[in-house]
Order: sequence, then C-alpha cells, then structure tokens
Amino acid sequence: MTKIDIKSVLKEYSLQFNQQIEHFFSFPEGDERRVSEAMYYSLTRGGKRLRPFLVYETAKLFGVGFEQSLNTAMALEMLHTYSLIHDDLPCMDNDDLRRGFPTCHKKFDEATAVIAGDGLLTYAFEILSRPKTSPDAQKRCYLIEMLGNAAGAFNGMIAGQMLDLISAAYTRNRQDIEGIIKRIEEMKTGRLLRYAVEAGAALGSANEVETKALISYSRKIGIAFQIADDILDLTGNQNIVGKTLNKDKEQNKLTFVSLYGVGTAEKIAWELIEEAKKDLDMFGDKADVLKALAQYIVDRNH
Amino acid sequence: MTKIDIKSVLKEYSLQFNQQIEHFFSFPEGDERRVSEAMYYSLTRGGKRLRPFLVYETAKLFGVGFEQSLNTAMALEMLHTYSLIHDDLPCMDNDDLRRGFPTCHKKFDEATAVIAGDGLLTYAFEILSRPKTSPDAQKRCYLIEMLGNAAGAFNGMIAGQMLDLISAAYTRNRQDIEGIIKRIEEMKTGRLLRYAVEAGAALGSANEVETKALISYSRKIGIAFQIADDILDLTGNQNIVGKTLNKDKEQNKLTFVSLYGVGTAEKIAWELIEEAKKDLDMFGDKADVLKALAQYIVDRNH
Repeated sequence: MTKIDIKSVLKEYSLQFNQQIEHFFSFPEGDERRVSEAMYYSLTRGGKRLRPFLVYETAKLFGVGFEQSLNTAMALEMLHTYSLIHDDLPCMDNDDLRRGFPTCHKKFDEATAVIAGDGLLTYAFEILSRPKTSPDAQKRCYLIEMLGNAAGAFNGMIAGQMLDLISAAYTRNRQDIEGIIKRIEEMKTGRLLRYAVEAGAALGSANEVETKALISYSRKIGIAFQIADDILDLTGNQNIVGKTLNKDKEQNKLTFVSLYGVGTAEKIAWELIEEAKKDLDMFGDKADVLKALAQYIVDRNH
Repeated sequence: MTKIDIKSVLKEYSLQFNQQIEHFFSFPEGDERRVSEAMYYSLTRGGKRLRPFLVYETAKLFGVGFEQSLNTAMALEMLHTYSLIHDDLPCMDNDDLRRGFPTCHKKFDEATAVIAGDGLLTYAFEILSRPKTSPDAQKRCYLIEMLGNAAGAFNGMIAGQMLDLISAAYTRNRQDIEGIIKRIEEMKTGRLLRYAVEAGAALGSANEVETKALISYSRKIGIAFQIADDILDLTGNQNIVGKTLNKDKEQNKLTFVSLYGVGTAEKIAWELIEEAKKDLDMFGDKADVLKALAQYIVDRNH
C-alpha cells in the first residue's frame, strides 16, 4: 500500500466540494431568504465532508468522477447538516457551539433553525431527483428510496436518534446494554456512512459482491468513527474539536466508551479499522485512499 | 351541475384513506418505536384529508383510481402532517391543541416531536420513490422534484413559514403589506394545494392546458381556504374547530382578515371560489366534485 497523505487528499476534495455549494443556492429577494441563509450558514461552517468524500471515493473505484457524483454527495451532506441542526436544538442536545461556530439556533433563532433543518432535508431529496444526479431515473429513485430508509424513523438515523434520546434513562445493569449501544451507533451514525458507500456503488453500477464488501467496510468504520467521537468528547481539546465537550457524561448518554472505558474502546476501534481495510483488498491499489481514510477516522483529533 | 353532498363524498374518501395508513407503518420492536408511534399519532388525529382528496379527484378526471393515486396522496398528507407538528412546537406557534387532540410535543415531548416531523418528511419522499407510486420512474422523479420545490425553502412552504414567522414584526403601514400577505398565503398553504392538483394531473398524464386550468383552480381555492381559516380563528367555535383560537391576533400575524376585516375578506373568498369553479368548466360533469369542494372550503365550520 502506497503511503497516502489522507489529510491533504480530504482537504483538496472538500475545497472542491465547498466551491460547488453556492451553485445549489438561489437566495430569494424577499425576507424569506433568512431561512436560505440559515441553511447556507450551517452548510458552510467547516465540516470534514467525510460523507460526500466517501460517496466520491467509492464511485471513483468504478470510474465515476467528481461531477457525476456531486449531486449525490451534496444531497447527503445536506441531510447530514439538517441532522446536526436539529440535534443541536435546546430540546435535543442543547449545543451552543458546532465546529467552533455558534449553532444555527444561536446564530439565528430556534424557529429558523427548525425550518432550516427541514429545508435542507427537503432539498436533499429534490437534488437527488434531478437528472444531473444520474441520467437513469430508476437509479435516481433507488438513491432516494435508499436515503429515505437510511435517514428514516423505522430503522434509520432517526430511529437511532430516538434510541439515543431515551438511552440516558436506561439502567447500566440492563443485560442488553451492549446491544443497545451497538444499535444506537449503527443507526445514528452508521446508516449515513453506509449510504455513502452504497450510493457510490450504485452510481458506479457495482456488482453485489463489491457492494457487500463496501457495506462491510462502512459498518466497521462507522463504529470506529463513533468511538473516536466519544473519546474526543471525553479527552479532546475543546478549541480543536470545536464543540462543547463532556456532553455525553453530563447527559448520561450510553456509549462504548462509557461502557468499556477509553482503553478498551480504543482497542476495539483499532481492530475494526484493520478489518475494514481487509474488506477492500479485492479493489487493489484503487482502494488505498479509502483504506487511509479508515485509519484517519481513528487518528483524527477533531 | 348535479347537487353533490360533498361532506359525504369527502368523508367516504377519508375513511378509505385512513384504512390504508397502517399499511405504511411497520413499528420497530425496540424502544425506537416511540418515534414511529408519534408519527402515527399525529397522522391519525382527524384531519379532513383535503390534500390527498385533491390528488385523488384530480387524477380521477383522467381515469386514475384510488390505488394508483394512493402513494402520492399518502406522501402529501405525511408532508402536510410534518409541517403541522413543527408549526405547533413551542418555538413556533406554540399550540397545545390540534383538531381537538394534544399536539405531538404535548402528547410525547419536544424532542420526539421534532424527529417525528423529520420522520414524516423523510418518509414522504421515500414513498414517492417506490414503484407503486407510478410504474414510470421518470414520473416518480418528477413528483419528487415538484414536492421538494413546493415544500421547500426557496419559494415553497418553508419560505412561506419563514415570512409568516417574521411578519408580526412588520408595521401595518408598509406599502407592500398586501403583497406580503399574498406571498405568505400562496407559499405557506397554497403551494401544497397546488402540488395536490399538479401531482394528480401528472399521474393522469394531463396535457398543458388541463394542468394550467387545474393550477389556476388550486391557487384560488388556496387563498379562499386561508381566508376561511383566518375567519375561523377569529370567529369560530373552539370545540368545533378543535384548536386554540385567536392565535393570529395574539401573535400579531398578518392575514387578509387582519388587513381588510371579516366582511371584505369573506367577499374576496366567495369571488375566488366562483372563479375557481369556472376554471374547471372544460372538464364538464367530471369536475363537479372538485367544484363542490371549492364551495365547501369557504362554507366549512372547522
């Protein structure tokens, strides 16, 4: 495996991605532009663009380029951003800071933040329906149905958020506590990461074996990503991480770190990353960036 | 025009529609089912099913039946219900009562209401993407793009909500106040009613002239509907209307009624309804139900 400077590769992608954002916005003339501004604000306050990058890099395994993967990547980042805006609301995690900037409801107000989130969620699906996403309408419908499922309330991201919201009320000695944590993390963070690779695979018309390998990879990096996040919440530098830390402990949230402690959780994450890399062996050198990305996920400091 | 008992026709449709709702829900086993339950709760607390009925009746003009219009009708009602849940939140209109029942955040809690709304919004698009909506994937994408636009933040429902939220701050002697009210009502209520007939027309493969006539009809009944709503807010019986009244006045909201008074606003609504009926003359007897519906919109007492 060639040595890859994954931070630079990711940075370069995110610069290119960020330049495209304004092309997706047409700010109205009237006072209703306030909600578009709130959407744009939250979408452009930093962010590693990990999910769009995963769409892009996965699609690239099959020869699909930046332009042809852009709509799908953009829709996914909009959906992710809506989930952060709503998660940060006073009635949810009540966060004032996100990536070092005031959260949407702090910068604007609560009502605007609610509908800005709604606006990004709505727009994500609209973007996917456009011919530019893929010339094949069947494929566009597939991308939409899959996103609805991944982000949805039955067994997707919203289900994970629901479980996360009530998890603090669980007693620690419940027998199935490890299973519950796994389900929260798989749904809340995992489903969108899985969507990123599944969508990339769909754009690239990957076969079943390839798609399965990519899903397996995404599941492992998903859990590792969440563990890394939880460790950062506990031990990170607030100025670097860019959000209020120690929230999980304060809110008595269930995480792998709260269950096993930092040391064991870290070891689990490392093992998962090694396995995730093996999942991609069938793609040869072409998957080196995705392998380096897996490593970066546990090594990052923000 | 044959005399039509529109209340019975609408009632019959809504019974048939309501029986289908449970087929769209598969409640998870785990504790995350709480959010599905909140979605189901809000979707099944009454409601006239006006928007789904409009989809159905419009599609029927072109020979499309209940089953073939069901997914589109259901998606639209889910989208409408999400907008009510979020509208009722403490940071928005702060309503405790909706159709005589506790609002979602009163029955559950604020966080659950936020994500239940998100869940319905997400599911609306997922439903539209399914083959059952239409065998033609191009048409499904068109229905999705159109809904994203109608419900969206740039010039759709969310833009109307934004303008409505800040309208209370306007001074009454602003020159463009009538224009602002018109834009709020056109976007906030009008866009989804227009979507109902546009989607019905698309399902029925209507031609351009037919679609234009239907859009014109929907615009007029949209404004009339909003005027009727505002008058009910001011003069209705709270037990029959089923929600807290006098909110507009309390919150200093801009409406046609606050601008012109009840008498003049009522007259505008009646005139619009007469014009809306004329728009449908080209469809002959087949449009009698839609004409009766227009009349019902201004005559209803809840």
